[in-house]
Amino acid sequence: MSAGWFRRRFLPGGPLPAPRPPRPRSSPVPYRRPRFLRGSGSGPGTADAPRRPDVRPVRSPARGRALPWNAGYAEIINAEKSEFNEDQAACGQLCIRRCEFGAEEDQEWLTSCPEEFLTGHYWALFDGHGGPAAAILAANTLHSCLRRQLEAVVEGMVATQPPMHLSGHSICPSDPQFVEEKGIRAEDLVIGALESAFQECDEVIGRELEASGQMGGCTALVAVSLQGKLYVANAGDSRAILVRKDEVRPLSSEFTPETERQRIQQLAFVYPELLAGEFTRLEFPRRLKGDDLGQKVLFRDHHMRGWSYKCVEKSDLKYPLIHGQGRQARLLGTLAVSRGLGDHQLRVLDTNIQLKPFLLSVPQVTVLDVDQLELQEEDVVVMATDGLWDVLSNEQVARLVRSFLPGNREDPHRFSELAQMLIHSTQGKDDGLTEEGQVSYDDISVFVIPLHSQGQRSSGH
Amino acid sequence: MSAGWFRRRFLPGGPLPAPRPPRPRSSPVPYRRPRFLRGSGSGPGTADAPRRPDVRPVRSPARGRALPWNAGYAEIINAEKSEFNEDQAACGQLCIRRCEFGAEEDQEWLTSCPEEFLTGHYWALFDGHGGPAAAILAANTLHSCLRRQLEAVVEGMVATQPPMHLSGHSICPSDPQFVEEKGIRAEDLVIGALESAFQECDEVIGRELEASGQMGGCTALVAVSLQGKLYVANAGDSRAILVRKDEVRPLSSEFTPETERQRIQQLAFVYPELLAGEFTRLEFPRRLKGDDLGQKVLFRDHHMRGWSYKCVEKSDLKYPLIHGQGRQARLLGTLAVSRGLGDHQLRVLDTNIQLKPFLLSVPQVTVLDVDQLELQEEDVVVMATDGLWDVLSNEQVARLVRSFLPGNREDPHRFSELAQMLIHSTQGKDDGLTEEGQVSYDDISVFVIPLHSQGQRSSGH
Repeated sequence: MSAGWFRRRFLPGGPLPAPRPPRPRSSPVPYRRPRFLRGSGSGPGTADAPRRPDVRPVRSPARGRALPWNAGYAEIINAEKSEFNEDQAACGQLCIRRCEFGAEEDQEWLTSCPEEFLTGHYWALFDGHGGPAAAILAANTLHSCLRRQLEAVVEGMVATQPPMHLSGHSICPSDPQFVEEKGIRAEDLVIGALESAFQECDEVIGRELEASGQMGGCTALVAVSLQGKLYVANAGDSRAILVRKDEVRPLSSEFTPETERQRIQQLAFVYPELLAGEFTRLEFPRRLKGDDLGQKVLFRDHHMRGWSYKCVEKSDLKYPLIHGQGRQARLLGTLAVSRGLGDHQLRVLDTNIQLKPFLLSVPQVTVLDVDQLELQEEDVVVMATDGLWDVLSNEQVARLVRSFLPGNREDPHRFSELAQMLIHSTQGKDDGLTEEGQVSYDDISVFVIPLHSQGQRSSGH
Repeated sequence: MSAGWFRRRFLPGGPLPAPRPPRPRSSPVPYRRPRFLRGSGSGPGTADAPRRPDVRPVRSPARGRALPWNAGYAEIINAEKSEFNEDQAACGQLCIRRCEFGAEEDQEWLTSCPEEFLTGHYWALFDGHGGPAAAILAANTLHSCLRRQLEAVVEGMVATQPPMHLSGHSICPSDPQFVEEKGIRAEDLVIGALESAFQECDEVIGRELEASGQMGGCTALVAVSLQGKLYVANAGDSRAILVRKDEVRPLSSEFTPETERQRIQQLAFVYPELLAGEFTRLEFPRRLKGDDLGQKVLFRDHHMRGWSYKCVEKSDLKYPLIHGQGRQARLLGTLAVSRGLGDHQLRVLDTNIQLKPFLLSVPQVTVLDVDQLELQEEDVVVMATDGLWDVLSNEQVARLVRSFLPGNREDPHRFSELAQMLIHSTQGKDDGLTEEGQVSYDDISVFVIPLHSQGQRSSGH
């Protein structure tokens, strides 16, 4: 299996990018070339445990480096939005040991069968804002959190069905009827582990940023191949799609102030003090002006998917909690995403109003049953940060994939070259690829993950 | 257009129905035969306006009564769950006047063009619990609330696009670009009106129940045909489906403690005092016992779609906020639905713990663009309360529809007879229709709404 991953530097000469949330222009975290990910154990709770390589070295086929599991490599786009690179990525092999816990919360890890592993693969993209600190921390931390969370439930994952009880030195088969009634499957434990890992990683980032006096946040898009399934966990506005000969299937949804409007308005309804009297919870088609006072205008509140009219009062003239449309939509005038990691200290400019209460770190997880697909050699998953999808639709990306791969079957680096070509096509160099000659001025990172024969290779344990 | 609607009395002799929430066995609201709906104006804010027939008389084709718009008629199932009938229904023609508002909130209705109407059709099913009071109030009130809400926005509905401003004596065409950017359509105003009408009706029911010292709640499933579209609004566990020759399409989703688990757990997380220390927010596959203390068991919290394991503490042994599976799932051990109207006074037995904070009255609205369908003569919408869907799947209902209608083309009452046949097939009298000979012991109400030529007939204004 060979996965391609490519990022490139911003091509200068175009107009400045669309405004993004205010970000510190000097972050103390230096720019770092993509790392060889070796060892970690830096997650909380594992600090005392002996370190071991839970993510193995990666290589970039495009550069011909000899990395054992044929993952990709990255170049950097830095769209002049920050002094340092804000996109980060990580990929590697996940090695999950079968561990046993005692009943006590903080008991140390006991290795019962050190030779027994469940192995999988891990790809992750982190799109930072307000500096690269959170994205770098996430790239260095999340896989460790995930490994720990998976190891905590691996006994249930390898059982025919997760048992009600997981304790002591054996799987207790009690109450199978309740587990069966609820329809709880091994994949639900992986989903739960991904959800918990994102939250744990967010806490780590919060502590590390505070300790080092740094700022920032990032989105997170993770794909994990495990036991013949591909799990895609997303918190933010990156996107993963499945491209096959006759099918394009989204594997993630974007979480932005627009897509999560009702959740965010609902929170402001429950906790109006979060707006400090400076914002209005209501949505209007545009910012209201003094002239609108007393007029009946279109609006939406937290309980409404539809629109209605209301008579404009003075409090409606405040700045809206969510404002703008599409790429310009902002939460509290500040942030373009509504889920992600970090941002613990982020406040609305010149106020004490915090954004973190409105943000979720928990991802939405979708499961692709790779073993059930009749895979063709050119079936791939394309993961990319929002810069790609601002310019190319799912269908356009699928067209590029289908036109590129069949003619390059003999090229061992074709997935990296495809990732590279996808990014090139967002730079306005290709004719007729993007609608109305759209060009991206954002950071872009792309993974191309071939699925063919992945099920067989990655499901062993 | 001829719509069939049929309910029948419980067929005695079967086992008692599955336990439902505790309900008062004697409600002061008497059993009422289905009503001829004439006039109303009983909604709040219209009390001072002259009364007029906003819902026209209905008729039952099965009984041959001469009703002007060929709607259905009802018989009653009373599954021995309550002293009085708990299913109620309403249907009729919606006549929406073009009214004008001044800028002031409470200004009286001014009729500018009394001859100008937007007309539509309305069908509604209300499945009561804790007595029939809420269901009867809803059947008598919701259409008036909806008419009022629609009249408040009708100027926007009949415009090419809803204008940003709706005020004074004319449509103000200001800011069309913002309305267009947001993609606000006339149908969004109807969705908003349905959402507001349900909430207004819930408030009316709350006041009326309190004033009369009555109790109870109900689910609400409403279909409205307007301007060539069919709107289906659902709050509860009734269901509507579209059945065509080659297609079965759900037009609603059910709202139960299971389907709304995360919303309900989230609320208990934010307001733990709602549980008064008597319930645990967490979900487990079964109720935990003392023996489970200290064990690692499967659980889910509000942020989790997946499952994980946790070490059982004493507080986990409390009764779960949501407990049970499928038909047996209960909110606070009491209620089987999570959305609906009424229940303002409902409390957990022998406690002061209220259920209303966990319930939503706002419906989910789906829109079927009837004018865009290439309708066949046998395309119908089937609306029914949960008793039907407990026993028949969407596909089984579709099979019954397709086997019945073509052979009965000349029968003017065929839609009522189809509704009747659908109910019969839940009573264990038909061979092989239901899986494992399942039988329903619940109240059941069914509307069968033929769509053919409805678009043309109902879209005039």
